[in-house]
Amino acid sequence: MDKIKVGIIGAGGYGGCGAIELLQNHPNAEIAALIDLQDIGRPISDLYPHLTGFCDLPLIAPDDPDCPDDFQVVFFSTPDGVGQKTAPSWLKKGVKVIDYSGDFRFNDIETYRGYAARIGWEQEHASPELLPQSVYGLAELHRDEISRSDLVGNPGCFAVSCILGLAPAIKSKLIGPESIICDAKTGVSGAGKNPNPTFHYPARYDAMNAYRISGHQHVYEVERELGLLAGHDIRITFTPHVVPLCRGILTTIYARLAEGQDLKKAEDSYRSFYENDVFVRVFGPETPQTSVNVRGSNFCNLSINVDERTGRLIVVSLIDNLVKGQAGSAVQNMNILFELEETTGLLHPGIYP
Amino acid sequence: MDKIKVGIIGAGGYGGCGAIELLQNHPNAEIAALIDLQDIGRPISDLYPHLTGFCDLPLIAPDDPDCPDDFQVVFFSTPDGVGQKTAPSWLKKGVKVIDYSGDFRFNDIETYRGYAARIGWEQEHASPELLPQSVYGLAELHRDEISRSDLVGNPGCFAVSCILGLAPAIKSKLIGPESIICDAKTGVSGAGKNPNPTFHYPARYDAMNAYRISGHQHVYEVERELGLLAGHDIRITFTPHVVPLCRGILTTIYARLAEGQDLKKAEDSYRSFYENDVFVRVFGPETPQTSVNVRGSNFCNLSINVDERTGRLIVVSLIDNLVKGQAGSAVQNMNILFELEETTGLLHPGIYP
Amino acid sequence: MDKIKVGIIGAGGYGGCGAIELLQNHPNAEIAALIDLQDIGRPISDLYPHLTGFCDLPLIAPDDPDCPDDFQVVFFSTPDGVGQKTAPSWLKKGVKVIDYSGDFRFNDIETYRGYAARIGWEQEHASPELLPQSVYGLAELHRDEISRSDLVGNPGCFAVSCILGLAPAIKSKLIGPESIICDAKTGVSGAGKNPNPTFHYPARYDAMNAYRISGHQHVYEVERELGLLAGHDIRITFTPHVVPLCRGILTTIYARLAEGQDLKKAEDSYRSFYENDVFVRVFGPETPQTSVNVRGSNFCNLSINVDERTGRLIVVSLIDNLVKGQAGSAVQNMNILFELEETTGLLHPGIYP
Amino acid sequence: MDKIKVGIIGAGGYGGCGAIELLQNHPNAEIAALIDLQDIGRPISDLYPHLTGFCDLPLIAPDDPDCPDDFQVVFFSTPDGVGQKTAPSWLKKGVKVIDYSGDFRFNDIETYRGYAARIGWEQEHASPELLPQSVYGLAELHRDEISRSDLVGNPGCFAVSCILGLAPAIKSKLIGPESIICDAKTGVSGAGKNPNPTFHYPARYDAMNAYRISGHQHVYEVERELGLLAGHDIRITFTPHVVPLCRGILTTIYARLAEGQDLKKAEDSYRSFYENDVFVRVFGPETPQTSVNVRGSNFCNLSINVDERTGRLIVVSLIDNLVKGQAGSAVQNMNILFELEETTGLLHPGIYP
Repeated sequence: MDKIKVGIIGAGGYGGCGAIELLQNHPNAEIAALIDLQDIGRPISDLYPHLTGFCDLPLIAPDDPDCPDDFQVVFFSTPDGVGQKTAPSWLKKGVKVIDYSGDFRFNDIETYRGYAARIGWEQEHASPELLPQSVYGLAELHRDEISRSDLVGNPGCFAVSCILGLAPAIKSKLIGPESIICDAKTGVSGAGKNPNPTFHYPARYDAMNAYRISGHQHVYEVERELGLLAGHDIRITFTPHVVPLCRGILTTIYARLAEGQDLKKAEDSYRSFYENDVFVRVFGPETPQTSVNVRGSNFCNLSINVDERTGRLIVVSLIDNLVKGQAGSAVQNMNILFELEETTGLLHPGIYP
Repeated sequence: MDKIKVGIIGAGGYGGCGAIELLQNHPNAEIAALIDLQDIGRPISDLYPHLTGFCDLPLIAPDDPDCPDDFQVVFFSTPDGVGQKTAPSWLKKGVKVIDYSGDFRFNDIETYRGYAARIGWEQEHASPELLPQSVYGLAELHRDEISRSDLVGNPGCFAVSCILGLAPAIKSKLIGPESIICDAKTGVSGAGKNPNPTFHYPARYDAMNAYRISGHQHVYEVERELGLLAGHDIRITFTPHVVPLCRGILTTIYARLAEGQDLKKAEDSYRSFYENDVFVRVFGPETPQTSVNVRGSNFCNLSINVDERTGRLIVVSLIDNLVKGQAGSAVQNMNILFELEETTGLLHPGIYP
Repeated sequence: MDKIKVGIIGAGGYGGCGAIELLQNHPNAEIAALIDLQDIGRPISDLYPHLTGFCDLPLIAPDDPDCPDDFQVVFFSTPDGVGQKTAPSWLKKGVKVIDYSGDFRFNDIETYRGYAARIGWEQEHASPELLPQSVYGLAELHRDEISRSDLVGNPGCFAVSCILGLAPAIKSKLIGPESIICDAKTGVSGAGKNPNPTFHYPARYDAMNAYRISGHQHVYEVERELGLLAGHDIRITFTPHVVPLCRGILTTIYARLAEGQDLKKAEDSYRSFYENDVFVRVFGPETPQTSVNVRGSNFCNLSINVDERTGRLIVVSLIDNLVKGQAGSAVQNMNILFELEETTGLLHPGIYP
Repeated sequence: MDKIKVGIIGAGGYGGCGAIELLQNHPNAEIAALIDLQDIGRPISDLYPHLTGFCDLPLIAPDDPDCPDDFQVVFFSTPDGVGQKTAPSWLKKGVKVIDYSGDFRFNDIETYRGYAARIGWEQEHASPELLPQSVYGLAELHRDEISRSDLVGNPGCFAVSCILGLAPAIKSKLIGPESIICDAKTGVSGAGKNPNPTFHYPARYDAMNAYRISGHQHVYEVERELGLLAGHDIRITFTPHVVPLCRGILTTIYARLAEGQDLKKAEDSYRSFYENDVFVRVFGPETPQTSVNVRGSNFCNLSINVDERTGRLIVVSLIDNLVKGQAGSAVQNMNILFELEETTGLLHPGIYP
């Protein structure tokens, strides 16, 4: 089979870089064009010198008449509001679309508007007619729908860690659904490539903070997914924090254990739920998990614990925000879209230390 | 007045170093001896070269016949089990005792045994007769008792952040006391000076983890203090995490807001509770707090938030684990013991960046 | 004596913050105004929350009619080109001036022009008539001239580490003056507060680099000072590097040992040269020096070594770039200008870890 | 062709981990056994959880009767003194040997003794008869000899950065050979996996230091290699430093430019010298190089500069100490030993950020 031709829009950011790292080594895909609004004409290896010799394609402007468009799939590694504008034209050409932003994570315009309000996006969705056909790109929950789709809303990084950490508990009615608290800690790379006073090295090397307390936009997709699994609405408390490391999200999830449940049943539920999911690894409380265990890889590690004294389930969910939380999920979705083995190009352990 | 003569036992660790940093600049105290089991004969400034010229006293063994003992107060900057053995002899000589460990944090032997079991300490307490007279050294809650005491159990670092973050809410019945979750993140200095595979730089620089999930020993003193304020037993869920920075504890505290309570009332309760406490600063949700805001200082910053969607109070509590979480509280307690202004020698902003 | 009233121009940057940290605790000085072009009206403790309660003065614009000017001294914590414009008006009012930039580090216009060319400063000096009366503010070399002056050019951070590390060797003719190489490593705070792609946390946490190889502007003042000590022109090779830490400059200095010299004579020369300088500490090769030994303090630590195999003197020179390399030297100069004990307000060990 | 069976001795350290990371993805090699003295019976993925599912072999003791020995090659990822004891028995069985330590980096016993004295190794070499047949495993200089050998002394990490940075200059007589100074900065992973007070996170996160000034053992192999290229003895000054990052060596190399040489000729010499070496990339002064450009990869980046003012060549040499400085060179040598394409399994860009 010919290699899948991939166009990456917004290639100059960390999300683009992550996709290039994975695709340059993918046996069934090739990077056909790198599209961006900045650094036009510069080889991507100028921006990311570690790619020298692996990917030296220049960045090209989307409105450049020479910008190629004969892709099988485009990755929108772009902020909210970009993919929704041009997705229709790509789809019309028969090009599949995987969008990293929140543009296509919701099937109905009302939910999207709630999400958009949170991020201060005041315009109407540019392609509301596409929402019903878009699929939420968390393969472990929506593998089949993704395989039948051509428009994937790649999930938010925090959302991946929360949903994977809660799905079995909701599905198996392990927990009281009104009692869920997700306390998430992310590395700084989650904030992207653009410098910012908050992430300036001297301001960050010995600093941690909570932010958007009870106001982060990823809560919407988490609640939607949990609601689908539960069959009823769910509201959670979600607090993101930034800690001084580069890669990784550790989310500590708390919920009241339902009557009659215990650690054994909880572990069994999680193991059973993910038994066919290569990228989710379930551990009991006896196996301490550290964020580096997933650094640079597409895995999600879940550690299942019960606080006997207070009757709470505590799940520690770990991902690399730039891989399973972004580019890795995108490539996993691409593999499904094109009927490849889901793990193609993704089975790397990362590096340590 | 003559300067208070202070002996520091366990002076070679971070807890001792912190006390020396504060005391070398204290107008009413002087360091009389540095006692330890290791590095005997070496000047402390050999171990901590930044102290060169500020404190060059040698470490002396406790069983050295030349070891001075004419102190007014000793700091036990020692692990559990040390202070309880020799505290009686110091007290008999009229020397006041401030102990950093859990040895004197509990007034009754039963509670101590529960605590001791958690840390794997299997011996009986060596001085159980002293427990009733010991005082828990969190000045904001026990100022008067400390002033009348001569034996202070300095609080655990995590406990300081949790108790200060919860006391007004319990006192004012702002929250459902069964619903409390404390998610704590600490810098690595909390683990002390001894090297360890987990805190080896290459293993830690890009790593975070939860540990002792539902099993950390500081939970006992938090529950005891909250119970005293509430007038009934309280059980909390407490999860500590280590993140790759040096100094700081950020604890995110969650609890169900009681009927009729709201953000305004919560803020008012906190401000009112701490109105006479110089070292506790209360902020509303609009003022983002970062751990560096308290780095190197004896302050505790509290940010009060309410998640309207789920009806939860969320308090972010910040301290420097080595100052307000350890040596700073010890000096604050010393000031109270000797009827000095409580802030003497402690009003420093720290340094930034 | 009344407290010296200090105005800080450019107070919002790291250099201003460092001065405030020192001056808020200085027994003979008080901060009279904080002047800046940005964040006008905001209390400085908004920008640097650790200063809350210690210095809450608002930033005021220099052209604000209410901007006070009844200072005894102004600190220009400003980029090149600012101090030279308004220094004359301050001096006319009898206000002494300490400028952090290169504006007043050179006594003649020709040397200044060479320096200015390096930094791409294309305008003529705005106050060339002041250059002859300005004094280079490295107290260890120019204490007497500073005491008789009212216009001090505070030295560059790299220059402090190089000059203090080389002065005794030049003075005592220990080394071949044509053979000097200074390999400097700085923490990121040296680049100031403004965010920048190079110092964005994810780009820096695991990265080091050399920059401006053979082109850094601080080389001019180093060569001028060394030339004054030698009595003839000196050219050195100087390479700055950035490493991922916050505070500290470590400069490794290499030079050919002159005929008849050895380690003993070298150590003696250094100890003798600095015997009256509290802030310079000389160590032999047997005493390993680490940058944290000076972190947060005004000290310069020098370690003197000889490579017997190649006949080279190797001096390792350590400072905190924000203290001895900037605000600490400024306060030291202020003390001299006002005939205070030179160490007033500066004798702090810093904090560790 | 069947896959090459590789045994790794000392598999539990960082050097073993690095080899496993590379070999688990190598198309022509397979890991046959992991041998160590510690953690016997534990799967390697217990020690390095990121390897879970990629390499779960248990560690086996070398004296275990079940320890396999049907390898084609063994990697000794062991300290000095281990490989020299058992290398003869492996060679007799026809197993090729690649040793990471200094045991086989020297062809004559005298040079070895000088090296051994530096590291305090007081025993006689256990297999001096093997020294003449051992080959120094820096492929760029000894590719042909390696291909004809069965015993390779893998080079020291600092030595790789110095030798690659100097070889063309020596070969082309660009520089005065008596004038060479190598100022090296390494990340902490170079010190290995064992915790140590110096590399404890709180002691290291904001600290840098020079060490073994003019006394580091790697200088021997650098001087030997340079001497071979020059045709005469060479003495260099070499100073190692530790900076607070994990992976990477940046060596700044200084030497007097010979009469008639200039930047153009220098760049040409370097480009020409390495024109057939995939893993060495030569850059001019205009292209700033940062250590992350080689992080996680087998590349060495060289930036060629001339300080016109002092007539010095300045080369900045960058490697990842754990890849090109250790396991990557070992795999490169293995590829040569077995007549594979030299780059097999090594063409990865690493990850960023």
